[in-house]
Amino acid sequence: MCDVCGCGDPEVVSVPLHERILSANERRAEHNRSHFREHGVLAINVMGSPGSGKTALLEATARRAPDLSLAALSGDLATEHDAERLARAGIRARAITTGSACHLDAGMVHHGLDHLDWESADCLFIENVGNLVCPAIYDLGQRANVVALAVTEGEDKPQKYPVMFRAADLVLLTKIDLLPHLPDVRLERIEQSLARVMPEPRLLALSARTGEGMDAWLGWLEESAHGTG
Amino acid sequence: MCDVCGCGDPEVVSVPLHERILSANERRAEHNRSHFREHGVLAINVMGSPGSGKTALLEATARRAPDLSLAALSGDLATEHDAERLARAGIRARAITTGSACHLDAGMVHHGLDHLDWESADCLFIENVGNLVCPAIYDLGQRANVVALAVTEGEDKPQKYPVMFRAADLVLLTKIDLLPHLPDVRLERIEQSLARVMPEPRLLALSARTGEGMDAWLGWLEESAHGTG
Repeated sequence: MCDVCGCGDPEVVSVPLHERILSANERRAEHNRSHFREHGVLAINVMGSPGSGKTALLEATARRAPDLSLAALSGDLATEHDAERLARAGIRARAITTGSACHLDAGMVHHGLDHLDWESADCLFIENVGNLVCPAIYDLGQRANVVALAVTEGEDKPQKYPVMFRAADLVLLTKIDLLPHLPDVRLERIEQSLARVMPEPRLLALSARTGEGMDAWLGWLEESAHGTG
Repeated sequence: MCDVCGCGDPEVVSVPLHERILSANERRAEHNRSHFREHGVLAINVMGSPGSGKTALLEATARRAPDLSLAALSGDLATEHDAERLARAGIRARAITTGSACHLDAGMVHHGLDHLDWESADCLFIENVGNLVCPAIYDLGQRANVVALAVTEGEDKPQKYPVMFRAADLVLLTKIDLLPHLPDVRLERIEQSLARVMPEPRLLALSARTGEGMDAWLGWLEESAHGTG
């Protein structure tokens, strides 16, 4: 484990300190979770590499699911671009600017909630910093982890970043409209790589741009949101 | 600053501890640097998102620069896939498997050097863990930072991950063969985003697959390697 970011180097941060950090986060995450439960809001931690298509996915979701009330917290080191894009797509959204932090933690999310009208939403997307490592370590109080993996990232990412894919409830294989232009990428190989690390592999392939595969994702989302009570 | 990973949360790790971590790494990096200098080896820290095309770039480099003697250390959380690919391309290569660490540090690199015949190489590539945040903080003793950014990652990544792009000596815009299939991505916008964070923007656009733009990169590499003395 890295110490603080939760992903590293036992030489520099002691195990007790590391545990103290994670357990402080855990308490805050439980606090967030009780808020989400109280209001019947499905909170989803949306993770993935930079450029894996997280924001485009949420924009397309808003366009195609007008009956779902959506809110979002959007994490980035700098800029509020993603939150602005989501707001233009009709999602109540707020940016969390992390400075140089490589992941969101439960405290940042709690602070973000204070500045967002999220309680009446069916679903709150917590769009994490683009990073296939560190965000997987930090519980934010969410009910589900959704990981976006773009076909352009190649075939073996699940095996190379197992911590992230082990933690996923659902993997969305994005940008499949580009598949015909990627002679070295085969869908079966991505599925095989995922099956080697994800206990119960659940993969939906889609394109936010063409809309292909979006219905299955919206089905998952609506089913999950209605289960929130 | 995150504490340990170098990218985070002042609540959990004190500034003195954070400084101690970075200064311990700094000493080890200087030690590596003196090794590289002694042997006249150009060491390059190759960074970028997961799937940005770092390994494909190095494979194509080996194929197109038979006169350059190349060695590589390849960092990944799990698997030795990248080092195996590089070895097949004719690069003396060794994997550094980081477990759950989100970045390489100078100690891991020093340990890797012990198991690699790198001293007679013109150039040593240190292929970092795919991550646009944390690797930028850790000096490995390299002479240059090269950041791979794929056109598929979108237009605004430099502004959203400024720490990485500020530290770059050269940015390689990869996978430009896909540009005709990306209606929402314009090269000028990427250049503009980069110009807002990189003090002296230096961008080369290329495709490892088609070879377009590779000559300019090889020119940069040969010029830099010959300057090593």
